[in-house]
Amino acid sequence: MISPKHTVPKAVIWRLPCYYSCLRDLYQKEVERVSSEELAKLMVVTSSQVRLDLSYFGHFGQKGYGYNVRQLLISIGNILGIYEDNHIIVVGVGKLGRALLQSFPFLQLGFTVDAAFGTSPGIIGSSVSGIPIYHISGLEEYVTGQKIRIAALTLPTSEVQGIVKHLISYGITGFWNFTSMDLASDDPLVTIENVHFANSLLRLNYRMNHLQ
Amino acid sequence: MISPKHTVPKAVIWRLPCYYSCLRDLYQKEVERVSSEELAKLMVVTSSQVRLDLSYFGHFGQKGYGYNVRQLLISIGNILGIYEDNHIIVVGVGKLGRALLQSFPFLQLGFTVDAAFGTSPGIIGSSVSGIPIYHISGLEEYVTGQKIRIAALTLPTSEVQGIVKHLISYGITGFWNFTSMDLASDDPLVTIENVHFANSLLRLNYRMNHLQ
Repeated sequence: MISPKHTVPKAVIWRLPCYYSCLRDLYQKEVERVSSEELAKLMVVTSSQVRLDLSYFGHFGQKGYGYNVRQLLISIGNILGIYEDNHIIVVGVGKLGRALLQSFPFLQLGFTVDAAFGTSPGIIGSSVSGIPIYHISGLEEYVTGQKIRIAALTLPTSEVQGIVKHLISYGITGFWNFTSMDLASDDPLVTIENVHFANSLLRLNYRMNHLQ
Repeated sequence: MISPKHTVPKAVIWRLPCYYSCLRDLYQKEVERVSSEELAKLMVVTSSQVRLDLSYFGHFGQKGYGYNVRQLLISIGNILGIYEDNHIIVVGVGKLGRALLQSFPFLQLGFTVDAAFGTSPGIIGSSVSGIPIYHISGLEEYVTGQKIRIAALTLPTSEVQGIVKHLISYGITGFWNFTSMDLASDDPLVTIENVHFANSLLRLNYRMNHLQ
């Protein structure tokens, strides 16, 4: 893991994954090098912003040459922890949970899904994309002492708060929250990212109907 | 469509879909009424915040009784435009696009997916969950003059900016953006919601590795 020397502004952290996926796109298109101007255009920021953003993490690129796409991709992947051994579980195996297990490029982003947990009798004991599905009552035993740090939450909104309390007590500290409930934690060791993609569609529609 | 009387604060618009899904959860559990305190607990806000939020849209609830779950659910559904005839297309039919077509509860949220557009020869002419898949070159003809206002963008990051320009010129004004590129528009008639769920996982991991 590459650690930045200074505190990195939130907006830079926000853009880091965007740099990563832009560079991955370029790499897949066999582009070998990219100027800060070209990268800026893809990122919809200025080229000086690109240079400033990247300077938080080291010296990348050469004057007159730009950036080597593969090298910068690997460096940002390192910064993001993509080449580490990141373990995650999925809690909630409804349609969304199953779609995530079937379609999300976990491995490509450096994540291993160890297991998924649900409650419907019909799916307990089966597997989706090779990932075993257990009953949620087995969570504590499964997670304790393992190196799983992150839980993806795809269970019903009204159940999420109760489960999160338990998961924190089992040692899970990262929550990738797909429920429509915004989660927050006062514990500085607990990190939460709220996704809410159904809500974002409803919000889009509302904002279109009430342009303000 | 119910229109609010005053400009509604962004935070209230943000919470509206959360109210909707909390109430839908309660309704599905056959809960008939809910107090502002109970609703506040589910929403992780104060009960006076709940009353203030809802007051932007009308008079709901009765002192000593609370809110009738079904009535409030329908009212908020109305405010969000869920019972209208909302039409959407999906642009990009890779794994994510297909997962969206297969699993996302469009109908439940008041949306009809008219068609999906991709480029891979293998899928053009086929359908996913009954939704026809056309070649992206047919977008203009398909969209022009139709009442489709929203496009879900699930295509590769590096292609999104070019396509959006075209879609705006065809009359699409709402973008539900799943690519890792943050989109923005100066046009006051264009509304964008960025979802970025792969980025949010990478950001979660980064924030856990560099607690700050």
